[in-house]
Amino acid sequence: MSNNTVILLFSSPDKKGIINKITDFIFEFGGNIIEMDQYVDRENSIFFMRVVWELNDFKLTKEQIYEKFDPVGRLFNGRWKFYFSGKKSNIVIFVSKQLHCLQELLWRYELGDLEIDIKAIFSNHLEAKEISKQHNIPFYHFPINKENKDEQERKESNIIKELDTDTIILARYMQILSPLMVNEYPNKIINIHHSFLPAFVGGNPYKQAYERGVKIIGATSHFVTEELDQGPIIHQDVIRITHRDNLEDIKTKGRDLERIVLAEAIKYHTEHRILVFGRKTIIFK
Amino acid sequence: MSNNTVILLFSSPDKKGIINKITDFIFEFGGNIIEMDQYVDRENSIFFMRVVWELNDFKLTKEQIYEKFDPVGRLFNGRWKFYFSGKKSNIVIFVSKQLHCLQELLWRYELGDLEIDIKAIFSNHLEAKEISKQHNIPFYHFPINKENKDEQERKESNIIKELDTDTIILARYMQILSPLMVNEYPNKIINIHHSFLPAFVGGNPYKQAYERGVKIIGATSHFVTEELDQGPIIHQDVIRITHRDNLEDIKTKGRDLERIVLAEAIKYHTEHRILVFGRKTIIFK
Amino acid sequence: MSNNTVILLFSSPDKKGIINKITDFIFEFGGNIIEMDQYVDRENSIFFMRVVWELNDFKLTKEQIYEKFDPVGRLFNGRWKFYFSGKKSNIVIFVSKQLHCLQELLWRYELGDLEIDIKAIFSNHLEAKEISKQHNIPFYHFPINKENKDEQERKESNIIKELDTDTIILARYMQILSPLMVNEYPNKIINIHHSFLPAFVGGNPYKQAYERGVKIIGATSHFVTEELDQGPIIHQDVIRITHRDNLEDIKTKGRDLERIVLAEAIKYHTEHRILVFGRKTIIFK
Amino acid sequence: MSNNTVILLFSSPDKKGIINKITDFIFEFGGNIIEMDQYVDRENSIFFMRVVWELNDFKLTKEQIYEKFDPVGRLFNGRWKFYFSGKKSNIVIFVSKQLHCLQELLWRYELGDLEIDIKAIFSNHLEAKEISKQHNIPFYHFPINKENKDEQERKESNIIKELDTDTIILARYMQILSPLMVNEYPNKIINIHHSFLPAFVGGNPYKQAYERGVKIIGATSHFVTEELDQGPIIHQDVIRITHRDNLEDIKTKGRDLERIVLAEAIKYHTEHRILVFGRKTIIFK
Repeated sequence: MSNNTVILLFSSPDKKGIINKITDFIFEFGGNIIEMDQYVDRENSIFFMRVVWELNDFKLTKEQIYEKFDPVGRLFNGRWKFYFSGKKSNIVIFVSKQLHCLQELLWRYELGDLEIDIKAIFSNHLEAKEISKQHNIPFYHFPINKENKDEQERKESNIIKELDTDTIILARYMQILSPLMVNEYPNKIINIHHSFLPAFVGGNPYKQAYERGVKIIGATSHFVTEELDQGPIIHQDVIRITHRDNLEDIKTKGRDLERIVLAEAIKYHTEHRILVFGRKTIIFK
Repeated sequence: MSNNTVILLFSSPDKKGIINKITDFIFEFGGNIIEMDQYVDRENSIFFMRVVWELNDFKLTKEQIYEKFDPVGRLFNGRWKFYFSGKKSNIVIFVSKQLHCLQELLWRYELGDLEIDIKAIFSNHLEAKEISKQHNIPFYHFPINKENKDEQERKESNIIKELDTDTIILARYMQILSPLMVNEYPNKIINIHHSFLPAFVGGNPYKQAYERGVKIIGATSHFVTEELDQGPIIHQDVIRITHRDNLEDIKTKGRDLERIVLAEAIKYHTEHRILVFGRKTIIFK
Repeated sequence: MSNNTVILLFSSPDKKGIINKITDFIFEFGGNIIEMDQYVDRENSIFFMRVVWELNDFKLTKEQIYEKFDPVGRLFNGRWKFYFSGKKSNIVIFVSKQLHCLQELLWRYELGDLEIDIKAIFSNHLEAKEISKQHNIPFYHFPINKENKDEQERKESNIIKELDTDTIILARYMQILSPLMVNEYPNKIINIHHSFLPAFVGGNPYKQAYERGVKIIGATSHFVTEELDQGPIIHQDVIRITHRDNLEDIKTKGRDLERIVLAEAIKYHTEHRILVFGRKTIIFK
Repeated sequence: MSNNTVILLFSSPDKKGIINKITDFIFEFGGNIIEMDQYVDRENSIFFMRVVWELNDFKLTKEQIYEKFDPVGRLFNGRWKFYFSGKKSNIVIFVSKQLHCLQELLWRYELGDLEIDIKAIFSNHLEAKEISKQHNIPFYHFPINKENKDEQERKESNIIKELDTDTIILARYMQILSPLMVNEYPNKIINIHHSFLPAFVGGNPYKQAYERGVKIIGATSHFVTEELDQGPIIHQDVIRITHRDNLEDIKTKGRDLERIVLAEAIKYHTEHRILVFGRKTIIFK
């Protein structure tokens, strides 16, 4: 498979001929489609599409693609975005004291599994400092309390912008981001919550699960919105527990879920497989 | 394995020597232990045990077992119960319009998988009438409305008592039992709820799941208590869904979960594998 | 969604422009695409596609569709097939003594979950006779032994043809079909094997699993080919077991797998979601 | 829970009174049982037991425990072993070029999840040298070829003995140990095989799986015996794949299975939860 490709994410009101017009465009200029997926939300009559084609023999430059596709997209009142191969997502990771999710991401990053560049690690604590250093990733310490929260977030936000950040990962970050920050990055902040949402929102979900006596526990990765733990869900997984599992056992079992569920969500996101519609995600795997 | 056995379910404050004294009792009268399981809830310091032994060469009669075990149980301030083989659980099933859970139970019942006698099927609708007849099980029609609910439940309760019912199964019964009825049968009414509780309590859980955009759906069997969908959980399972699954697809996928989760819970309960403590179940599989 | 649709299954050597030409065809005559999925086997450079469109405003009749699509398909040296809505698959089910898979199919059939017409049930035993009668499906008894096998299969084959059978289901049929019969129905005979193939081919897979001491057991549905248990796999699932599960327990747990795995495979097949390439299945879910 | 405990693993021909006599022994000297599990293999009439009790108020020293239990064990022709808390298992890990399993073990080791001391890492390649150094674990390079295999294994074996090694882990070690080595450490060498055994024994199991067109892939941890991939299975898990997964995707998905399945097996083994009987493992979780 060629490494010189472009991904188009497209959505619009559903109408006859969208696929046809879009594939006409690709074919006209000599593109070879290598992946294509589409879905129609019948309830709301919305069309969603992801198509990937090779650019090797494609007769348009990057700029021309934007220009020439414009009338096609407008024809259907669509919203679209192009992602060109070779451009990795710039990532900033927020973490607190627990490092297992961070560690998993660093490991996959170094294996080359994820199309990302980790630009910085932010923390309100110091536990992640050493591992950041080992992996040659800038570490920023932003202790947070009631008084300094706004100011610290402003500083964080500035660095995030300087680093040309595409995606913010909350890898077990135990602070709630302010609405200001959240609204600046719609569908670009990914959190891992350690329950199968919508069960056990908020703090201490494992303790809540333990006390409720559930027989399965879960983890959920989702985009962050203003309402806590209410954003569009990207990925979830669960594991069975029994009465023999005490709170500590539950946390240990959950840890393996969290790191894999978060890594998977980041993979979907940075491979541009996700379209968000309202509270839902369309994920073209 | 012998078919002439007794099951002891025992719980008490935790203390040294409980297992020893109980196995002394069994050994003294010539019992051969064939299954034994125990668990200590360290948080609350409670000991739970299930032990099964053969009665073939056992030197005590059923009555003597009750009598001779009494001082052993009292020594530890225990609560205990004996279940003798050959006595199947008498079951009454409540159902509404959807019959898949009922059908699964009838099928397992006839295969001899479950140690139960289905004594009657109750419904507020008529859909289950024919299948009840096919399987030679008395069908009772109790239409429920605001005005007649109390009276109908009284009638139901009378028949339940006449039939010497051990366990009531709500196999997708779409009415809420009154507290009166619920409190009469503590830990003896098993419901199937079509979500992974505590997510999506109450009505239309599949619709709630669909609207929330979850990536897994579930089913939960639990004992019924006064608070809706809050009773001790017996068994849960989940299945993955995607954005492509509309509400109808979700219902279809969920149906297979519901019937297997309910059947499994009834299996545990009627094999006397469950001890309830507070909101939790200890299940000795 | 309209009920008047057509499904096209298409495969050909991979080449630029296939999707474009096919969607041109659909768009030209006014079709509205409601599902579309494609996949390229890069190793072998083969293109596979499934596309569904509405016929309500389509300007071609069924016959014209065949005629007008012909040059499009030929252009790419393709192989293709059209399936029109309203035409259910005619099914003949082979069964022996164990009825759980048959029962599951009958149940889903009556719920209207499967796009099938069960035309007949064949068995080398009599266990399925009564249930066939209850469901008003013709039952044929074909006892098989070494001497009569060829003759019996000839008779079976004649009825299969008379019934205009699309798909043959081996729902725990404990006889091996002769190559003659198998070769007459390529990718049209679906078997359920009670192991996660390729582990435990041949007889008594649960016994083999029990003796090997595996920690998971499985079930596999596959198309039947001349070589025993070697045909293209359609669907598989597994369930965990422990040392406590004896052979009987394993069979009971496996039963639930078998019936659901087989039903799922039949669903994919009769919704025309499967393309076979060599030993592999491409399944557009 | 006390940290001063002893684990007894016991097996013997099944007979009345074993549990009673063993709990008599514990109770007589003031032990408080905190975990107990037993199982009878009815087919072979063998009794298996794991019991853990606190030593704080226990009236026997370690030496006396061995001495005083001896007549109890002999009474039932048993085989038994005591494991005292505070004594971690000494581990030597063999690895080749792929480091994901090693990395997972190092990570869990440093989190304190596993009751192990990693004494050395052996490899026929150099890829693991740096990570060993980072974690301060001695690394030994033993390149293997036909000519030097015997000699290298002798050297390895000497170090293994010097290090008082309890368990050898093959963490994706791509050499086959000689029978001599294998037989020296019965039920003490744990391998991870990247398939759901017994499917796809031998080399390149993912390639075999890919070519067979299976819909699930797996990983299996097992004790190593003379016959390749035939030893008693400790743990297995699987993950779903589709026709879209090429060989590289399969390897990536499998990697997550392998590391978790191996870590889980080591946990069971080093917590002394496993009894081996013939080709099977009894695992008291």
